[in-house]
Amino acid sequence: MSSAPGDEGALGAYLDEVRGLIGEELHRIIPADHAFTGGLYALVRDYPARAAKTLRPALAIATCRALGGAVDAVLPTAAALELYHNAFLIHDDVEDDSELRRGRPTLHREHGVPIAVNVGDAMLALSLGPLLENTATVGLGPALRLLQRVARMSRLTAEGQATELAWIRQRRWDLRPADYRRMVHGKTSIYSFSTPIEVGALLAGAGPSVRGRLALFAARLGLAFQIQDDLLNLRGAVVATGKEAAGDLWEGKRTLILLTGLPRLAPAAQARALELLDRPRPEKTEGEVAWLRDQLEAVGALDAAAAEAQAWAAAARRSLDRLGLPDSVHKSFLSGLVRYVVDRAR
Amino acid sequence: MSSAPGDEGALGAYLDEVRGLIGEELHRIIPADHAFTGGLYALVRDYPARAAKTLRPALAIATCRALGGAVDAVLPTAAALELYHNAFLIHDDVEDDSELRRGRPTLHREHGVPIAVNVGDAMLALSLGPLLENTATVGLGPALRLLQRVARMSRLTAEGQATELAWIRQRRWDLRPADYRRMVHGKTSIYSFSTPIEVGALLAGAGPSVRGRLALFAARLGLAFQIQDDLLNLRGAVVATGKEAAGDLWEGKRTLILLTGLPRLAPAAQARALELLDRPRPEKTEGEVAWLRDQLEAVGALDAAAAEAQAWAAAARRSLDRLGLPDSVHKSFLSGLVRYVVDRAR
Repeated sequence: MSSAPGDEGALGAYLDEVRGLIGEELHRIIPADHAFTGGLYALVRDYPARAAKTLRPALAIATCRALGGAVDAVLPTAAALELYHNAFLIHDDVEDDSELRRGRPTLHREHGVPIAVNVGDAMLALSLGPLLENTATVGLGPALRLLQRVARMSRLTAEGQATELAWIRQRRWDLRPADYRRMVHGKTSIYSFSTPIEVGALLAGAGPSVRGRLALFAARLGLAFQIQDDLLNLRGAVVATGKEAAGDLWEGKRTLILLTGLPRLAPAAQARALELLDRPRPEKTEGEVAWLRDQLEAVGALDAAAAEAQAWAAAARRSLDRLGLPDSVHKSFLSGLVRYVVDRAR
Repeated sequence: MSSAPGDEGALGAYLDEVRGLIGEELHRIIPADHAFTGGLYALVRDYPARAAKTLRPALAIATCRALGGAVDAVLPTAAALELYHNAFLIHDDVEDDSELRRGRPTLHREHGVPIAVNVGDAMLALSLGPLLENTATVGLGPALRLLQRVARMSRLTAEGQATELAWIRQRRWDLRPADYRRMVHGKTSIYSFSTPIEVGALLAGAGPSVRGRLALFAARLGLAFQIQDDLLNLRGAVVATGKEAAGDLWEGKRTLILLTGLPRLAPAAQARALELLDRPRPEKTEGEVAWLRDQLEAVGALDAAAAEAQAWAAAARRSLDRLGLPDSVHKSFLSGLVRYVVDRAR
């Protein structure tokens, strides 16, 4: 897993190029405001204009091109996925009452819940536009298959969200790491990895066997990504992640770190931790959250999660290697991404 | 505009039949819950299972059948519109922080904002299912046109919501009745009347000229409906509407009644009314809201709105007559609906 010098620079350059392309595409897709849009489209542009990673469009584009597909074929769909992602973030921030997104206050903290919910809805509606335009460019059959994938993605993502919200609301802690992995598969992998990669493969005309191996790659990469995300939430600097410190503990999220760490705590500390986690956000103090974070670090739960993220990344790397893709800057992006996902600081 | 005896019964019977058909169709479309859906689909079924009018599917079905189309062709799309409608209601209730929906607490008041937002998102995702299945039953071309109509409807509805939310947030009262009508066109007419009717016409294979006349019918009917809705909000009994009394005044909504009535108030009363309307909901009292309602009644704003609703209904009736549809139970439903919209008690 050694990375050649300049790898990270190449990854960054690839993402920068994608960000430019997606920015232009979104500019085309998002209408201009007028007297009867209530400033809606300025807010639709807000989250995408913040320093986004544009990871999902990059995955769709790189997969498509690594398999010999054209960028023009995949760009509208990639932009639709980015719009969907930002809609999801806005609603997710409302649902978790998060404070910061990409280093600035979340949309609902700046403009209120009503406007934020509606902006998310507008983005979901707009994301259908490029998918419907596909019919003219990639043909009716493929366009419909893409719509089906996106509809399935939206449904499974809502199921994943519901699972997580129900766990929090029902104060469920009788969960094992396997429950976490299953929830992440629905909530993160499907929409952030599996669907972008499958969409790229479909638009390159890849057959079922290649798509099957890519699905395995995507699921493993998704797990590595989410576990690393949970780690960064507890270990990362706010300035780098653009999110509040230890937000997951404030929100009481059932992360792998907690499900691994809680059983390792002494009974008194465990009871105190559970009582703290189940309290509503405003009734927690910074000192208590820092205490819990330190406890989890002390019992090795963060190190264990880091090791598991590395293991999933290694497994993803093997799935990718087995595809035997010809060398290209796009293949390099995909393998560079596997390293990035577990080495990143944001 | 005299209505033959039994007309209302016929309308009710038609709606009952539609409700039964849509109930079966939704049962087919909405998945069963399992361990990793967090009880999501039980909540997806909640609003549709409350005593819904199923007005939108009835419009789609009646239009399609009045033009000679088949019920099987239109039923999945009609169910998709009903799902979309209920998703919209859930998010709208969050945005307005409404208390009651169809006689019971709103979803977010019962289960919290996070779960309600996610249930709405799941319903939006599910509504794509039947629209995509259309490809197999009505053909690729028509199925895509229907998807385009629904995508446009979602976008325009979000614009209408944004307009209304911006007016409230920016404390705008420099609005004329024409502004209200334009906002209603985007917010209510498009999704409750124009799209269901156009979808029904498309599925019956109607040409552009018939569809154009139906669009006029739908826009007029939508205005009559919304103005009557605003009236019922102030005059209707809670037990009949299933919504809280004078909710629009609590929420500070810019209704035709207010835009007509406020300029008619004496300066002191006008100032007091504006100050009251702009206050957040928890800072208003029942006595103050009742006072404003009485003021609006006293200056004839409610009577003026009632007269305008009747005028739009009459205009809708003329548009419908000009279509020269052959007599059928479906045509009777459409003309009965015109009367119902302005004569209803809920």
